[in-house]
Amino acid sequence: MSDEPATTKGPSRRAFLRNGALAGAGLVAGGTAARAATPDPLITEVQDWASAFGDPVDAAPYGTPIRFESHVVRRNVEWLTESPVSSINFTPIHALEGTITPQGCAFERHHSGAIELSKADYRLMINGLVDQPLVFTFEDLLRFPRATTTAFLECAANGGMEWGGAQLEGCQFTQGMIHNMEYIGVPLKVLLAEAGVKPEGKWIYAEGADASSNGRSIPMEKAMDDVMVAFFANGEALRKEHGYPVRLVVPGWEGNMWVKWLRRIGVYDAAVESREETSKYTDLMPDGRARKWTWVMDAKSVITTPSPQAPIRHGKGPLVISGLAWSGNGKVTKVDVSLDGGRNWQEARITGEARSKALTRFHLDIDWDGSELFLQSRATDETGYVQPTKNALRDIRGLNNVYHNNGIQTWWVKADGEVENVEIA
Amino acid sequence: MSDEPATTKGPSRRAFLRNGALAGAGLVAGGTAARAATPDPLITEVQDWASAFGDPVDAAPYGTPIRFESHVVRRNVEWLTESPVSSINFTPIHALEGTITPQGCAFERHHSGAIELSKADYRLMINGLVDQPLVFTFEDLLRFPRATTTAFLECAANGGMEWGGAQLEGCQFTQGMIHNMEYIGVPLKVLLAEAGVKPEGKWIYAEGADASSNGRSIPMEKAMDDVMVAFFANGEALRKEHGYPVRLVVPGWEGNMWVKWLRRIGVYDAAVESREETSKYTDLMPDGRARKWTWVMDAKSVITTPSPQAPIRHGKGPLVISGLAWSGNGKVTKVDVSLDGGRNWQEARITGEARSKALTRFHLDIDWDGSELFLQSRATDETGYVQPTKNALRDIRGLNNVYHNNGIQTWWVKADGEVENVEIA
Repeated sequence: MSDEPATTKGPSRRAFLRNGALAGAGLVAGGTAARAATPDPLITEVQDWASAFGDPVDAAPYGTPIRFESHVVRRNVEWLTESPVSSINFTPIHALEGTITPQGCAFERHHSGAIELSKADYRLMINGLVDQPLVFTFEDLLRFPRATTTAFLECAANGGMEWGGAQLEGCQFTQGMIHNMEYIGVPLKVLLAEAGVKPEGKWIYAEGADASSNGRSIPMEKAMDDVMVAFFANGEALRKEHGYPVRLVVPGWEGNMWVKWLRRIGVYDAAVESREETSKYTDLMPDGRARKWTWVMDAKSVITTPSPQAPIRHGKGPLVISGLAWSGNGKVTKVDVSLDGGRNWQEARITGEARSKALTRFHLDIDWDGSELFLQSRATDETGYVQPTKNALRDIRGLNNVYHNNGIQTWWVKADGEVENVEIA
Repeated sequence: MSDEPATTKGPSRRAFLRNGALAGAGLVAGGTAARAATPDPLITEVQDWASAFGDPVDAAPYGTPIRFESHVVRRNVEWLTESPVSSINFTPIHALEGTITPQGCAFERHHSGAIELSKADYRLMINGLVDQPLVFTFEDLLRFPRATTTAFLECAANGGMEWGGAQLEGCQFTQGMIHNMEYIGVPLKVLLAEAGVKPEGKWIYAEGADASSNGRSIPMEKAMDDVMVAFFANGEALRKEHGYPVRLVVPGWEGNMWVKWLRRIGVYDAAVESREETSKYTDLMPDGRARKWTWVMDAKSVITTPSPQAPIRHGKGPLVISGLAWSGNGKVTKVDVSLDGGRNWQEARITGEARSKALTRFHLDIDWDGSELFLQSRATDETGYVQPTKNALRDIRGLNNVYHNNGIQTWWVKADGEVENVEIA
């Protein structure tokens, strides 16, 4: 197994039974009442589903989630943008586990709607300061050597609504502009080598085929590093809303740069300074100047359960705290959790691998005594950088920033198990 | 990037251009005709999809694949089983890439249909040779420490139809009883420790809540090793057909043992010798005795493209050969590919990680001269075991086996790019 919890000794786990934590076991404190417990018909009686045939194998050539999971969906916040065709939705991270985000509920953001572009109609041009301008069909791309990368995509505006204070009720909304997928595609450097980058070519400019085009400039050093022209995500083709059939993948860098429905890579000797890197994706600082080209997504984390959309329903006793951590600068090396709003910290367990520039899952198992908690998580990455508090960010960035809010999130867990988004001094 | 192809030098990649391999580039041999080439309106003209809005962000709270990918579906073979409610379907591995299998098109097998069982109605009993019989609700399970494992599930009957010779037209059918998912759940040993296994408890027996129950015995050593009671797959809840809300995960062992809609773990001092481990999942050998308890899925591989359902449509020149390799005994350490039916072998590139007991992706990039090929792949795992030929298996197993056909697959690639399933001496 990739990762195992440390607490697997028999006697210590009996704590579950002694304090009656197992709802269905029908036990009372002392543990010997099991035999006297009322039998649970859901296990002792033959049920309907054991008495009839279920669905046949051809019921769903491409299946969808069971109806009981209909709450695990993308959601959007209507007042956030002026139009639903230049807008964003949010991943239901409160309801997910592990590290893979299903394409179907992975958030997406676009500036003129999600277009329908077939592989037959797809074209990718590379032009500008190159020896040989080229136009690739989708089939052409399938003939170049493939690579893989598993990476998080986070919108730079993730948490942007929280700069002014705790506002939205749920991590889907406060940190949900994020997803994590396994991509297969061609390294951009392979395609650039095909065209031949001239020595004066220092930047690329990536544009999409949608009306907004969403052009972004990327320095050549990054373009020649780990940027990928991707056409598979989590095993299958990209979904329409995720840029079918081809998108750019820019590991660790802000989501807006991961151009969807990729149409063109222009090679230039300077940045284009497009709308998306001047008017947008820049932050006004206290001195009146704007912070620009903030490409890397800094280390960040959030507790996904318990959280406002996932309150504690089982009362006190054993409680699993689960969350996500990530860093655009590499691997997450440590995640700490606080139960008292940042006064005391304990190290959480990283479950599975801590992959570079990808979502990392962490857990902490506690014995909840039923009292109020102020839950926080704090990520440290391989550079030694530690996720800051929101106030530490505000001290530097002022109050007019939109983007790159990677501050520590606080959840107020009340005695009844309900959870609220708060900030504490 | 997790993995990069080695051939990224500019000059060698120019081979793409010199032999006119790029369809859309409009080049002729020599490479200087680019400027004289006819402009491609799909890149030079403003298209409809760049002139209008696409779908809004609330179009699909839970999205599905774009209509152009409607061929990427589970398929079944009707004559294979007597009833579609005790049957199997097949993963479209010819159309997938990377290592993650989307739940929606991941194969499934059941013996009485896929049942609908809610989390509220779900119960898991642990009984038999334990100190304390227990019944868990789904909510109880959420309170135990979680672990993760990414593992392939292969039906022991995968390729069973091919024992008599090459028969089915496509790797979806010849090797498609397989999928790979990232699971989150509770290690079974944690739950067994909760109940307290008596010293005489040497086996567990896992049963499902469906009518067939699909009971299987698992030795205690394996149960206490890496077996997991899982309730998340690829980030979200298990799909109905994959055992919602809880299934057993038995890394590296035959798929039938990964009991779905898990209802009970019984602890016993001997194997139960159920139908599924006596009448089924055993193989008649030449000496008249049956091979039984063949739990581990041996190392295996298959080329997914080109393959019968994925012929070569672009003619000669650069060709990407892609495939999957796996071993229930640990990591795949090497994959070799042959173009001439096993006479000559060259080592393929493993793309990404070779994870223990999980699907591993490999690639080989060749320059196809357009002549007939007999493609084969051969996996080697960390134990030194090498995937055998089908004839080597038949020499030992005879002709009355149903299960565990991990023999080398041959694809006959014809000059026109069509591909056929064949066996060669």
